[in-house]
Amino acid sequence: MPEQIPEDSVGLVQPQTLHFDEPLELRSGRVIPEYQLVIETYGELNADRSNAVLICHALSGHHHAAGYHSMEDRKPGWWDSAIGPGKVIDTNRFFVVALNNLGGCHGSTGPQSINPETGKEYGPDFPIVAVRDWVKSQVRLADRLGIEQWAAVVGGSLGGMQAMRWSIDHPQRLRHCLVIASAPKLTAQNIAFNEVARQAISKDPEFHGGRYKDHDTVPKRGLMLARMLGHITYLSDDSMREKFGRELRRDKFSFDYEADFQVESYLRYQGESFSGSFDANTYLLMTKALDYFDPSIDHDYDLAKTLSAAECKFMVISFTTDWRFSPERSREIVDALIAAGKSVSYAEIEAAHGHDAFLIPIPRYLDVFGRYMETVAADIGLPSKTQSDNSRPEGSN
Amino acid sequence: MPEQIPEDSVGLVQPQTLHFDEPLELRSGRVIPEYQLVIETYGELNADRSNAVLICHALSGHHHAAGYHSMEDRKPGWWDSAIGPGKVIDTNRFFVVALNNLGGCHGSTGPQSINPETGKEYGPDFPIVAVRDWVKSQVRLADRLGIEQWAAVVGGSLGGMQAMRWSIDHPQRLRHCLVIASAPKLTAQNIAFNEVARQAISKDPEFHGGRYKDHDTVPKRGLMLARMLGHITYLSDDSMREKFGRELRRDKFSFDYEADFQVESYLRYQGESFSGSFDANTYLLMTKALDYFDPSIDHDYDLAKTLSAAECKFMVISFTTDWRFSPERSREIVDALIAAGKSVSYAEIEAAHGHDAFLIPIPRYLDVFGRYMETVAADIGLPSKTQSDNSRPEGSN
Repeated sequence: MPEQIPEDSVGLVQPQTLHFDEPLELRSGRVIPEYQLVIETYGELNADRSNAVLICHALSGHHHAAGYHSMEDRKPGWWDSAIGPGKVIDTNRFFVVALNNLGGCHGSTGPQSINPETGKEYGPDFPIVAVRDWVKSQVRLADRLGIEQWAAVVGGSLGGMQAMRWSIDHPQRLRHCLVIASAPKLTAQNIAFNEVARQAISKDPEFHGGRYKDHDTVPKRGLMLARMLGHITYLSDDSMREKFGRELRRDKFSFDYEADFQVESYLRYQGESFSGSFDANTYLLMTKALDYFDPSIDHDYDLAKTLSAAECKFMVISFTTDWRFSPERSREIVDALIAAGKSVSYAEIEAAHGHDAFLIPIPRYLDVFGRYMETVAADIGLPSKTQSDNSRPEGSN
Repeated sequence: MPEQIPEDSVGLVQPQTLHFDEPLELRSGRVIPEYQLVIETYGELNADRSNAVLICHALSGHHHAAGYHSMEDRKPGWWDSAIGPGKVIDTNRFFVVALNNLGGCHGSTGPQSINPETGKEYGPDFPIVAVRDWVKSQVRLADRLGIEQWAAVVGGSLGGMQAMRWSIDHPQRLRHCLVIASAPKLTAQNIAFNEVARQAISKDPEFHGGRYKDHDTVPKRGLMLARMLGHITYLSDDSMREKFGRELRRDKFSFDYEADFQVESYLRYQGESFSGSFDANTYLLMTKALDYFDPSIDHDYDLAKTLSAAECKFMVISFTTDWRFSPERSREIVDALIAAGKSVSYAEIEAAHGHDAFLIPIPRYLDVFGRYMETVAADIGLPSKTQSDNSRPEGSN
């Protein structure tokens, strides 16, 4: 069996569920009385608990960031390209923690959980969780795991917003902050796309005000549309051109409303498969967290002032064809960090893949990302990758 | 009452309906046995019938391009900024013809018309009409009006595609072709957005396979989503930032799913008002015409070869922040025209308004467009605008 699992994979992994009994007061003023977080960890926490790396996930992500749950899994975790033995986030040296955020639909407390106050599923009553609330819950997670300070908090897209929020709200609890394909806040256009997705879901007659479970149904059409639209914004115009162009499904036009072009059937397929697996209330909630995120709101809308609280070092990475969170948005973060006198490295990666690039093993991206993780390793006194590679048993490659 | 109508307006106008009894064979092989076209005309056709300008409309456009239908109208026709006495398309000198295309929902034969073969409304059985079919129907319109050769065929967006098609299929019937904010064919991303809109409409339970009229309903939700999405692609990221930014509707976040940001309520309003007035089957059909358009398909996908048939002169205009049909797409047309040895002028207009810019009276745009229309006027021996202005009765300004 192990010959099916690549040697640079973390292998078979198992999620764990951690319960938190202390109520969590949210940005909205509402309180989650108790909750659970589902996590996965890869690698070993070292003796001085200094080698922990937190992975924050994006809109539809979860705790399963690397490895396989069973030998039947067709695909590994969502960031397997970056996490594993000898990989960029090297599990031979780092202890990696990935979680499903509150409000999620992969096992952490969310709309599909039982509300202890009513004994019924939260559904649409699950409170809207802000990025700062997630970070608050992640601080408790760090406490539980005995991690006083993360070697690094790392996130792409919405995950990068969580990493930024860590640096502002809990400056002493991370040494490095990696913000990838992210933005300091959404633009009107970003919000507009989210709003179309939300309307698609909430206007679906099967949504029933979020109580679709009570009606034994799911707003599949709305979720499908939301995902189709999402996909367009994750890919670049270039990558869609390369991937699909104007390629037809048959040798001529249908002159009806069947899918004529490959890109149409691809999107339909993506939308349909997502709509069967993702929770609609979670989707709504995640998009609101995105919309609301703007840490400068408490600092006169001055991002440099906002980030001046940070004590960690930063790495910011963007991708040339990412039009959801363009390089310009990353440069706003970088400029604010420089204005705040912080240490920041920045790389703009030439990549055709659009926003999705942050999940793709693009050589220069992995190179830049990996080099930065080497400085993280050096900073906490871990052996360099070469030393670590050399220490492997012979023939392990 | 006339004091309410601006002096540079064509004033009160009335649509006319023209019937065509000759069957129209379509690109799809299907035949429309008879049809009517609704048109408006502004200005006077001159004695040698040389001063006619055809206006081709975009996705949701129609024949009402300028002036007012009644003194109660709050808004003039959709291109009133460009058409009128003394305006860029100067109705003091040109005879302007605007029509609603076949398949439309503003009076020309379309899904809401009675199918003479069944005595019932066409609905979803109305054939998909290609851009070349529209042009074919417009040729018959020209014949009916006694216009052997248009001084110019002018169109923005999907209208620009019709103008291009005129130049290829009927080279002797136009002297000038103005292609504004258009593209030689859609990209995969363009098609993808259209497909999301189509899915939104056709998956709306009120769509009933296009027979919503039989169920005394309208797929309003789907049309609303399609329009909201359309709007995002018509505006630029910049213009949305300028227009809305992250401005809130109330002084704080709702922490529910009400519209928090101005951009959300703007889109909802736009979507709702459109969904009450536009026909869903027409929307589907128009998006398919866009997707299918690629005149190079009959010429080994070589656009220069395709355009080599043209005998007219060309003016191509694009707008810097138009990301639906970016300047790059216009340059493809210009490059092909140059390669084909055609006369072409090209202007890329600095404008924040995105695709919608072609409808907006941006000074440099009107200047460039107006200068080109002056060369059109000179080419057919019309007096120059200054001469024409001088010929106005004194005090008319």
